[in-house]
Order: sequence, then C-alpha cells, then structure tokens
Amino acid sequence: MSQPFIKKEKIRFKHIDYAGIVFYPRFLEMLNDLVEDWFEEALKRPFSKMHETNGIPTVDLKIQFKNAARIGETLTKKLWVKELKSSSIVCGFQFVNQNEQTVLEGEVTLVNVKIQEDRQSIKAEAFNEEMKVKISSFII
Amino acid sequence: MSQPFIKKEKIRFKHIDYAGIVFYPRFLEMLNDLVEDWFEEALKRPFSKMHETNGIPTVDLKIQFKNAARIGETLTKKLWVKELKSSSIVCGFQFVNQNEQTVLEGEVTLVNVKIQEDRQSIKAEAFNEEMKVKISSFII
Amino acid sequence: MSQPFIKKEKIRFKHIDYAGIVFYPRFLEMLNDLVEDWFEEALKRPFSKMHETNGIPTVDLKIQFKNAARIGETLTKKLWVKELKSSSIVCGFQFVNQNEQTVLEGEVTLVNVKIQEDRQSIKAEAFNEEMKVKISSFII
Amino acid sequence: MSQPFIKKEKIRFKHIDYAGIVFYPRFLEMLNDLVEDWFEEALKRPFSKMHETNGIPTVDLKIQFKNAARIGETLTKKLWVKELKSSSIVCGFQFVNQNEQTVLEGEVTLVNVKIQEDRQSIKAEAFNEEMKVKISSFII
Repeated sequence: MSQPFIKKEKIRFKHIDYAGIVFYPRFLEMLNDLVEDWFEEALKRPFSKMHETNGIPTVDLKIQFKNAARIGETLTKKLWVKELKSSSIVCGFQFVNQNEQTVLEGEVTLVNVKIQEDRQSIKAEAFNEEMKVKISSFII
Repeated sequence: MSQPFIKKEKIRFKHIDYAGIVFYPRFLEMLNDLVEDWFEEALKRPFSKMHETNGIPTVDLKIQFKNAARIGETLTKKLWVKELKSSSIVCGFQFVNQNEQTVLEGEVTLVNVKIQEDRQSIKAEAFNEEMKVKISSFII
Repeated sequence: MSQPFIKKEKIRFKHIDYAGIVFYPRFLEMLNDLVEDWFEEALKRPFSKMHETNGIPTVDLKIQFKNAARIGETLTKKLWVKELKSSSIVCGFQFVNQNEQTVLEGEVTLVNVKIQEDRQSIKAEAFNEEMKVKISSFII
Repeated sequence: MSQPFIKKEKIRFKHIDYAGIVFYPRFLEMLNDLVEDWFEEALKRPFSKMHETNGIPTVDLKIQFKNAARIGETLTKKLWVKELKSSSIVCGFQFVNQNEQTVLEGEVTLVNVKIQEDRQSIKAEAFNEEMKVKISSFII
C-alpha cells in the first residue's frame, strides 16, 4: 500500500510575521523544500545534479490555509501523487501540526522540463520509465 | 466602470533561481506586496496602522504559472475583486510581462480578522460599511 | 574546555542564485537560525517563549565570504562567545564545508533587550546571572 | 564633486519580524538591490546582461545597525566608493530614515569575477578602463 513522503520542519523566527504566525510565502518555500527532499531521497534525482540541464517547475498550485502556525511548532509535511501524466505530476500535500490539526493542504502540478542549451528556454519532456515506476509508488 | 488595481514590479537578482527564472515563492511575496499596496493606496487602510489589532490573512490561493519571468523584466500586477462577502474578499489577480504575456494568474481569498488582546488568537470580523464601499469599487 | 555550539545545514535550491551559489542574504538567515538554535538548545531560552517581551537584536556584524557554497553541500555552522558584556554578547562564527574549507567567518554582536509595553520601543537590559553562566560556557 | 548613488525603499510587511522591526537579513536584500540598481542605472552594466558570464560577489561585509526600521517607513539608501582596486571595489553605504536617523551603515567589498565555461568556478578579473572611470565618479 502506498504511503505519502513525509518530512518534519520546525517553525523558526525567520518564518513568522508581525502577527506571530507564518508569513504565507514562507510556506511555499517549505513546500519547495519538501519536493526537493522527495526528489533527492525517494526518487534519487537530487536537484544538485538535475538543475544543470533539467528542472521541474511548478505550473499550478492550489492551497487552503486552515490553521495558523507559530514559532516553535514542528509541522509534519506530507506529499503524495494524485496523478502521473507523461511529463507532469499532480501532487497532493498537507502540513499538520503537533495537535493533529491541518495547517494547510492543497495540490501542486510539476512539469518535467529540459533546459535548452542557450539556458533561455525550457521544454516539457516525458519522464523515463524508471522515474515513472518510482513516482508511481507514491500514488495514493 | 470598474478598473483593477495596478502596480509594476521589476524582476531582480534576489527573485531568480539557478535556472534564471523567478523562484515561485518570490511571486507570492510580490502578490502580498500588491495586496499591501491596494490596502494602503486604494482602501486607505495601511498595514502599518492595521497590524497592531487587525489583519487580512490569506485563507485560499489558486495560481497558474503560465510563462517564466526573468531578471530585468518589469511585470504589471493587476488585482480586482471577484466577490465581496461579509468578512472576506475573493480577489482575482494577473501578472503580465512587457510582451503582454500572462506570467501568472489566479484567485486569492482574504479574511478580515481581529487579533485578540493576548495576541494568541484571531477572529473573523465583518468589514464596516465604508470599507465595503471602497472594496466594491474594484468588483469586476 | 569550551566548545563552540555546532549545527549542520544543507544548501537547498531556495538558497542559490543564478550563478549556482548561495545568495549571501540567505547566509544571514542561516546565521540567525544558528543563534536561534543556540538560545533554544544550549541557553534554554527559546525564541518562541522570549519574543513576547524580549529580544536579542543584532547591532553589529562583520563577515568575510571565503568560498562559495553550492546546492547539495552540507555546511557545519559554528558559534562561540568572544566577549560577554553586561547586556550584550560578541560572538564569533564560522561556516565550513565538507572539504574543511571555510565558507565564511565573522563576528556578530547581539544585545539583550526588553520590549516596552507599547511594542514601539526597546531598551537594553542586563543578562541575569543564570544566563551569564550559561553564555560563559561558550567563551573560547 | 562626487555624490553617492541614492535610492529609496519602503519598509513592507514581508520585511518585518514579530517585534515589528525589519528582520536583518532583509536589510542585506535591500543592500543587494542597491548595488544592482547602481550597476544598472549608474554603471550601465545591468545584472540581467552580466550574469551569464560575470558577477560581482560580495567578499567582505561590515555593518552596524543603529536604529530599528518599521513598516511604512521609507528609507533613503546611499552607496559610494571608498576604494577602487584592480578587480574589486570597497563601497560605503548608509540607510537613513525619514527623521534623518541612521538605520544602518557599513562597508561592503565586491569582486569583479568571470564565470568559467563549466559554470563551476569563478575567477577574479580586472575592471576595464571604461568601468574604472564610471566607478571612480562615485569615490567620496
């Protein structure tokens, strides 16, 4: 049975705003970190190797912010695959706090791209079979 | 006839990633700046006055990234009101580049809240009539 | 014998710029995280408790950037005390990469302050004896 | 007689922390923006053109934070040249608020570099004569 990819992240001083809660663009950095960890740890395709020639830009994002997060809290970040297409993935995600409350949840679409030689343009590229198998193991 | 609220922003070195395009959490900072400018310049409710006691946290966000943005480009950021409820606003937004291409577009829901005296909790609060009139002038 | 306070941090996609190296303001976020961890883990004064009424703003910073840091590298961040005054601390710091090269090093002065009731002004405040003892254990 | 290069920047919600004052790594982003504007507007060497093949990384930074800056304030940012060497510049800088108070001041050393073809290494490169003349006009 499939499991989501899971990481923990602690809310820090740099994340919070004047109201004492996470400034929401910082949540998107946390989401990007989660995708980065998933590619490196689970899919064995680290960004440090990939970004010379390839990338997985975000093309669509839907997010609902359900509960505020405060400094000192540790969030559990979950990511899973809702749909795998030939050159893109629709992922679901959810951040939960220590009281099992949902802080946020949503859906993000990533596209597999090849960076052209001039570094000025990018082009969608189909995932290879090996990647498809790895990604599929996170379909829930 | 209603007009969107419009501001321009130049893409800078701090916004871009290794692929030379804007790192998408930076777009959300640009969106937050746009909302901040709208509240200050058009709604006459500057964040610098408001955030001691009130706030307008983002509770829902949908965004499609259509075209990459690169350093040196100047984006035109547009914001308008799609729906005004008693204590929340659904805004549409669009960022367009100098070639009239849509860089991104989407929808964001903001809730009017009162920060409680202990600064530990917040509560939705209805917009007053004056604010409703001002906000309504941006309904498209 | 005294030891520096040590934490590790991995360079991520969000830290790097178009040249593929860490954008230097991100290093200051990493330094702030290090001070935050030191206060929480070693001095037992977590920012999550402290920042309602107190703070330790940075008043002076000197930093030399010696070697670039790239995505995927893990830096060892070291912090120690060079001088403890009645209401301020001069800390030394050094970030080292996996090849034992110094990425950056410098000196930061933190002041212990009390936030006034109106939240509009701050005032330096002497460290209490307990804090002085804890801080002193990091003097090198 | 020489003049500093001057730009204004407004403090925004994204810059401030829980204490209601600018989180200091954000000041370094503002400083980087100032250097970027100076290169583009005064030295006619925009980062958007330069960063394919060249860069001006920061190698040394000294900064004193004198007064807090709060949301809604507009800072005047000043930059000038203290010393021009063959492949590096020592710049002085000062941020002043609307009450003529110094918010911060310091000194930053920038090195002119050439990015090697593999994009994995950089090398210091002497400024050409044209750049030297332009830079020299900001020596104070």
